[in-house]
Amino acid sequence: MTDFNILRSAIAEFLVTDLDAAREFYCSALGFLLIEETGSALYLGGLEERDKYSLILRKAEAPGLAAISFKVESERDLEALARLADNENLPCRWIDTGAQPGKGKALRLHDPGGIPLEFFCQIEQRDWYLQKFRHHRGARIMRIDHFNCMVRDVAQSHEWYTGKLGFHCSELTDTKENPPRPWAVWLHRKQNVHDIALMNGIGPRLHHVGFWASDRVSILDACDVLAACGFAKNIERGPGRHGISNAFFLYLRDPDGNRIEIYTGDYLITEWNRPPVRWDIDNPMRQTFWGHTPPKSWFDEAALVKNILTDEFMPTGEALLTHRPSYVI
Amino acid sequence: MTDFNILRSAIAEFLVTDLDAAREFYCSALGFLLIEETGSALYLGGLEERDKYSLILRKAEAPGLAAISFKVESERDLEALARLADNENLPCRWIDTGAQPGKGKALRLHDPGGIPLEFFCQIEQRDWYLQKFRHHRGARIMRIDHFNCMVRDVAQSHEWYTGKLGFHCSELTDTKENPPRPWAVWLHRKQNVHDIALMNGIGPRLHHVGFWASDRVSILDACDVLAACGFAKNIERGPGRHGISNAFFLYLRDPDGNRIEIYTGDYLITEWNRPPVRWDIDNPMRQTFWGHTPPKSWFDEAALVKNILTDEFMPTGEALLTHRPSYVI
Amino acid sequence: MTDFNILRSAIAEFLVTDLDAAREFYCSALGFLLIEETGSALYLGGLEERDKYSLILRKAEAPGLAAISFKVESERDLEALARLADNENLPCRWIDTGAQPGKGKALRLHDPGGIPLEFFCQIEQRDWYLQKFRHHRGARIMRIDHFNCMVRDVAQSHEWYTGKLGFHCSELTDTKENPPRPWAVWLHRKQNVHDIALMNGIGPRLHHVGFWASDRVSILDACDVLAACGFAKNIERGPGRHGISNAFFLYLRDPDGNRIEIYTGDYLITEWNRPPVRWDIDNPMRQTFWGHTPPKSWFDEAALVKNILTDEFMPTGEALLTHRPSYVI
Amino acid sequence: MTDFNILRSAIAEFLVTDLDAAREFYCSALGFLLIEETGSALYLGGLEERDKYSLILRKAEAPGLAAISFKVESERDLEALARLADNENLPCRWIDTGAQPGKGKALRLHDPGGIPLEFFCQIEQRDWYLQKFRHHRGARIMRIDHFNCMVRDVAQSHEWYTGKLGFHCSELTDTKENPPRPWAVWLHRKQNVHDIALMNGIGPRLHHVGFWASDRVSILDACDVLAACGFAKNIERGPGRHGISNAFFLYLRDPDGNRIEIYTGDYLITEWNRPPVRWDIDNPMRQTFWGHTPPKSWFDEAALVKNILTDEFMPTGEALLTHRPSYVI
Repeated sequence: MTDFNILRSAIAEFLVTDLDAAREFYCSALGFLLIEETGSALYLGGLEERDKYSLILRKAEAPGLAAISFKVESERDLEALARLADNENLPCRWIDTGAQPGKGKALRLHDPGGIPLEFFCQIEQRDWYLQKFRHHRGARIMRIDHFNCMVRDVAQSHEWYTGKLGFHCSELTDTKENPPRPWAVWLHRKQNVHDIALMNGIGPRLHHVGFWASDRVSILDACDVLAACGFAKNIERGPGRHGISNAFFLYLRDPDGNRIEIYTGDYLITEWNRPPVRWDIDNPMRQTFWGHTPPKSWFDEAALVKNILTDEFMPTGEALLTHRPSYVI
Repeated sequence: MTDFNILRSAIAEFLVTDLDAAREFYCSALGFLLIEETGSALYLGGLEERDKYSLILRKAEAPGLAAISFKVESERDLEALARLADNENLPCRWIDTGAQPGKGKALRLHDPGGIPLEFFCQIEQRDWYLQKFRHHRGARIMRIDHFNCMVRDVAQSHEWYTGKLGFHCSELTDTKENPPRPWAVWLHRKQNVHDIALMNGIGPRLHHVGFWASDRVSILDACDVLAACGFAKNIERGPGRHGISNAFFLYLRDPDGNRIEIYTGDYLITEWNRPPVRWDIDNPMRQTFWGHTPPKSWFDEAALVKNILTDEFMPTGEALLTHRPSYVI
Repeated sequence: MTDFNILRSAIAEFLVTDLDAAREFYCSALGFLLIEETGSALYLGGLEERDKYSLILRKAEAPGLAAISFKVESERDLEALARLADNENLPCRWIDTGAQPGKGKALRLHDPGGIPLEFFCQIEQRDWYLQKFRHHRGARIMRIDHFNCMVRDVAQSHEWYTGKLGFHCSELTDTKENPPRPWAVWLHRKQNVHDIALMNGIGPRLHHVGFWASDRVSILDACDVLAACGFAKNIERGPGRHGISNAFFLYLRDPDGNRIEIYTGDYLITEWNRPPVRWDIDNPMRQTFWGHTPPKSWFDEAALVKNILTDEFMPTGEALLTHRPSYVI
Repeated sequence: MTDFNILRSAIAEFLVTDLDAAREFYCSALGFLLIEETGSALYLGGLEERDKYSLILRKAEAPGLAAISFKVESERDLEALARLADNENLPCRWIDTGAQPGKGKALRLHDPGGIPLEFFCQIEQRDWYLQKFRHHRGARIMRIDHFNCMVRDVAQSHEWYTGKLGFHCSELTDTKENPPRPWAVWLHRKQNVHDIALMNGIGPRLHHVGFWASDRVSILDACDVLAACGFAKNIERGPGRHGISNAFFLYLRDPDGNRIEIYTGDYLITEWNRPPVRWDIDNPMRQTFWGHTPPKSWFDEAALVKNILTDEFMPTGEALLTHRPSYVI
């Protein structure tokens, strides 16, 4: 039992080299709401969200991830998380209130696998677009859903997120070793399959940020609009259905190569103590219940992440587990 | 066998009292393409259409219908239709090339029930929006599908359309008399259920113009956008499914009370000689396979139609058949 | 802060006079899974659920509701709830383990408005049908979502559920009085709009039990199958969209008149302290964002509920608030 | 102008090695109606069809195609087609009435490219499942839509189908030569994009038979059910959207490798003389408006076709045009 309450995945901050290209992709084609725009960043949101924004696109020299951000219940939780970082010697710093538009003070730290995390509790509320249907366009993105990260040592990170941060494991892929080790884990705080997934791989890197759509048709409509806007090649994988999470998915690369998933059709989880759904690493339906073989890029490419103290990209290292599932090319 | 070839229902010309209100309803909310606009009329089209327009909204003192228009194969067909009108002493006049934007010469005449018909063979082609998905909005109207008219004597009109114009009957409601008389008929030239339906009622009046959508979700999306734009009360009936035609339907009243149907899910008919599907007039699933009881307005209200010679509204008369189906309130 | 943890709405127990008719309606037409069947009851479940069942149809002389049941985290929670009932002099009794198939011991009590509640923490798990798509039919019911009850004094019940049971209010209709009083409230424990709604009316009665579908198309498919199976008249209201909750809805009456809602398209709520969405009682979009006027039966009819001690139906009384919203016929 | 009237594509006769496996795939998973079954063949139909069947699966030593069959208006048309075959020295024979269940006499002949065609005008009518929604399952196949054939000389076949059989060309891919030659053509008699497509390739072979679904969701549901039934690997390509025809598609291989397409979202064509939509052979959106790169098998593999006189498979020859579009791997 933790002495703080992490509510959910809340904001991703991507680095992009061309704000105009990003605006065209995310807003004009995909239908994200453009909430605020400065010379150096775009602040985007989904139709169901009431927090000011859930996706920051910051102008930078090179693409990548600045941080993934979780909302916590109160400032007391931020203090408790700062103490945790201190106890564990994790790099950590405070972000001032208002450093980002409308957001209260925030804590950034690196998890044991090197992923840059942010925690905050207060953010300005904005107009709610849930019933402003005239503004529902493209993929009709409803809300941010989850982060998917590649780390060198899934077991270590899994232990930390569940043991120290109070995440719960909904689904799990084990290695074939005896005893098995976790190859990939889906961890949640809110009541669906995940707020964060951790996959064995070259890390620390961000594989994708998942956004939630209401139904499959919205995802198909997104494909049509993307293609009509010249973004057919930005569709990297899907549409298809995952075995894990049961999600109907579409993976996109933004003009800088940052990857997002449009995601729908997982399920509600109200009992923390339910044992995770376990998948055999070589079960071909685990990754792809049905759908095309993913391209090599989907397995191999992921975004570099920033060091929260130096603003340099974090160096990456090889994965601990070297087995490749049989369905990976 | 006729010596001319009527291709399909093609254009409806509605009279509206407020072009701005009409534009807001048809274009901003429903997503019709605004192809051309003059001080006195709007010319609208659907996403699948390549002919310049399929709906004309003409500024007038009072709402109603100027004419419903069918496309024929060639000018020879127009001449043959003029001869037919002459032989049958039907009021008739020619419309000059260009009297409406981009349209070749046209023939207007009144059918024996008094409905103002137009025939033309040539119209300017325009950009095709079928794959311009960024412009697909609201109900994603694909194309005009059919006209539904109320006439005093369905048997007489039925005889004329099938015997003289070469229409075929796909579905039929008979009276319970012996022998039965047609209460309502669905007639087609193109290969789906109808280009024109004739219903027993106070006539001549136009009940509605039907437009085709690709799927049910587009019709539900239209409801959301209409309501969000303040047009919730303009939804008169539906969504629901008709027994006749199997169509999934939504009936709307425009700001002037002119009625349109958004329609999807009927079926292909490639054999002219297939016997019509017959429905018992008191079968409650005939009108409403499922769905709410239609409001009284749906049964009682319909648009007055113009005399093509005088430009006055045609006087109406009582229906010949006075039976009311048991499910009509 | 309560000293127990109610997880979510979990089971409804309806009384039906004809099990065969009920099976035909719920299983053959609507596609509920039939999990277990005894001579006196059917135990049904949804495709996403892993608990053994969520709907009990018990053979009885007259239709109505035996109880609505919430799942709690642990047996300790049941004990705490028993103490609460005792402290508040609420009628209360224990149900033995196994009195219903696969279910651990349960506590039944009446809330201050007279609604019969059950709480349990343990129930047998069953095969998961989420990915057994061959068995997805009809409305493709995913899971139980909520209970909607009519009570004489919404303010009193609201106070009890939020103050004593730890429910949170997501949406709210106030009276026009000064100060306003709650006319109807939507209360949740799980992270969507509600587990229970309380509406001002003749009470105690159950208005409906809500079941969740994945998307709007599943609800339209349900209409088609219901009508094809002879249940067109069991569709009482909808499809349409509520303003409150944003749900796309369909209301059905089972062959005994018990009412269920098929429900989709509300939203995630992860912050308990978010102020409720407030609706003006006379806002016509509150009840019906778009859709037909509900029939009188929808406002007037509701199921009687059983006294948990005597097994007699609870007597009902008039509502405290007598205002009728202007859009109610 | 021909002196006969071909109505539409009507029946495909596939050869399969295992009727049980075929039944499981086509009926249990995909939801085709099983209309009649003999020891040596299955006769399947779609939900919208009223002709007895549209797909014959005949037990054979090796998979392949026996014939593709077109419905004509009358027996007079069959006689005229027999004269045409005679005039052109095309192999031809009559099939007796009743040689296939419920079907009148039929004419089989080879087109100039070697494809085995059948023509018939009379077939038994059966129960209509359009509104028997309880039987709508899997892909909810509505009707047969088209045949897609690979032939050595598209120009020659194109000439024959349009010049001699009265087909019209809706869409077209030209080579880059000067003057260009047709690389692939989409030809129709009924009023949508095609009844038969001809593609340049090793021929004569059948690439696929297309079946029509009402909407995209039915196609996605088919993927779910196929995967749940163990047929995930039988999904060869898609879902995606073609540039040509605008169809939303899914390509499947049956247990014997015969290929079908589930197809929706093309458009109505009522004017024969409309110039075809032309596509550049190297336009990547021609084949795939959006969607994964097709697997090599989709380009290379196709079904052998039977000689109608000898019942041997027709020998194949290389395509005349050797250019490969740049997007073909």
